Amino acid sequence: MVNRMTDNQQKEYLSLIEKQLRTYLPEEDLSQADLFNAMRYSLLAGGKRIRPTLILEFCRACGGNVNAALPFACAIEMIHTYSLIHDDLPCMDNDDMRRGRPSNHKVFGEDIALLAGDALLTMAFEVMLQKEAVEALGAQRAAQAAGILAAAAGAHGMVGGQVIDLMSEGRAISLDTLKTMDECKTGALIVAAAKMGCVLGGANDEQLTAAENYGKAIGLAFQIVDDILDVTSDTQTLGKPVGSDIGNDKCTYVSLMGLDNAEKTAAELTGAAVSALDCFGEQAGYLIQLAQELAARKN
Amino acid sequence: MVNRMTDNQQKEYLSLIEKQLRTYLPEEDLSQADLFNAMRYSLLAGGKRIRPTLILEFCRACGGNVNAALPFACAIEMIHTYSLIHDDLPCMDNDDMRRGRPSNHKVFGEDIALLAGDALLTMAFEVMLQKEAVEALGAQRAAQAAGILAAAAGAHGMVGGQVIDLMSEGRAISLDTLKTMDECKTGALIVAAAKMGCVLGGANDEQLTAAENYGKAIGLAFQIVDDILDVTSDTQTLGKPVGSDIGNDKCTYVSLMGLDNAEKTAAELTGAAVSALDCFGEQAGYLIQLAQELAARKN
Repeated sequence: MVNRMTDNQQKEYLSLIEKQLRTYLPEEDLSQADLFNAMRYSLLAGGKRIRPTLILEFCRACGGNVNAALPFACAIEMIHTYSLIHDDLPCMDNDDMRRGRPSNHKVFGEDIALLAGDALLTMAFEVMLQKEAVEALGAQRAAQAAGILAAAAGAHGMVGGQVIDLMSEGRAISLDTLKTMDECKTGALIVAAAKMGCVLGGANDEQLTAAENYGKAIGLAFQIVDDILDVTSDTQTLGKPVGSDIGNDKCTYVSLMGLDNAEKTAAELTGAAVSALDCFGEQAGYLIQLAQELAARKN
Repeated sequence: MVNRMTDNQQKEYLSLIEKQLRTYLPEEDLSQADLFNAMRYSLLAGGKRIRPTLILEFCRACGGNVNAALPFACAIEMIHTYSLIHDDLPCMDNDDMRRGRPSNHKVFGEDIALLAGDALLTMAFEVMLQKEAVEALGAQRAAQAAGILAAAAGAHGMVGGQVIDLMSEGRAISLDTLKTMDECKTGALIVAAAKMGCVLGGANDEQLTAAENYGKAIGLAFQIVDDILDVTSDTQTLGKPVGSDIGNDKCTYVSLMGLDNAEKTAAELTGAAVSALDCFGEQAGYLIQLAQELAARKN
């Protein structure tokens, strides 16, 4: 019963998110056709939409208006998407493939891919600060939520994590450095999503802290599970080549902690995420389910 | 007398802007040293600071608090700077030099330059939406001003203009296309600066429209004067090689309109910018002077 409920809830959120994303990048927009095609190619390529889902569900759990939170949900996905486009560029990870398709610059060229990333990052703030979005929530909440996202995405957050990643390439790093890198590179946006949802929903301080702790725990668990799947899964299930971390001589939670410890830590973090939500009472049902599903996922 | 007044005013603004920019990128910040060094290298490299000056002066002319507008002035300069860093990258204009120094990626590498640009773009929104900045102005004005900047910097503004520029490379373009490109690529941020200053200063609708018209006129005049100087100046006065547009077979206002017509149009636009400010009365003194100085500049 719980599973079916959360399954329906996830489908409803995905449908809302996909529909809203398309309104920001209408196909009829023929000005700058190349740029918009490149933005659409990566932004509308599907994916789990974890970050926007967290915003909508935390907003709802705090008693807020899910529809008013939609521009913010789309904004965080735009920022996540821009980071993937820039990350794949030849001067960065030089990845030709992303989610089973040629990466953005392989299709549109490096120049347009760079600009599509810049435009998505900028559009994130545009949609959060549009008159309608601000009016639906009140300027105070809108500005606070957009500010949380800006801080998480920048030099002390996601971009900072990418720098640590670059600096660590081909070098042995400690478990602490790996954790710091992941807290910045991927954790910061996940924590921001949880906090933004709370702010948009009018949370109290206790809920805001709980959301932050939940976000930190599932963010790190997510990375550890990624590393575990790279050694325990098979290419067909995972949807991408397994064993790539070992092949690239990359320091991972599995290589630094051992497989057993990594699995134990992921389970502990998932438990901590669930416990963190105590103050949400019954409203935490779907968020608990989400933490458990992310831990148990096979790809 | 007027000249000395405006000269002092410009010096005061520059000092405020440079000081505030440094507070956002303190040298003591040793986390992500490479990233912050790259951000500092380009952001603190001087320049005319025209856009932040417009924000501060329009804010003052509308009776607003110049100090409260400083984060917004810094934000627009961060966005201008990120666009220069990304523009210089090998996959874009591939420029080795900028303002007489090696461009960012020549010093820090393409990967760090890319990320420094991303971080500056993101930091722009972070500083505008910080608690203190929002409280000093009220969330309504802060969100509106930040929203104006986001719209101007994105796919329908500055980034869109860069795409037109890319598409026009090595091709003959019409005067209309050249104007559209400049209106987006450089005009949009100048217009945004004027409007943001008005919003932050609590302008009425008449003032906001006047600022928009002023910004459009000086933005276009600025580009025309750039093209004129490329054929009429000498390398020492200009501070960069003259005749580079001809050498690059580039369509310019001079090549499309002729030198005489270009000079006449720049003068007309400057006149239109001055007239647009009528509703500001005495408060327009410095903005009038600024329009005239930009038209009469030698580099």
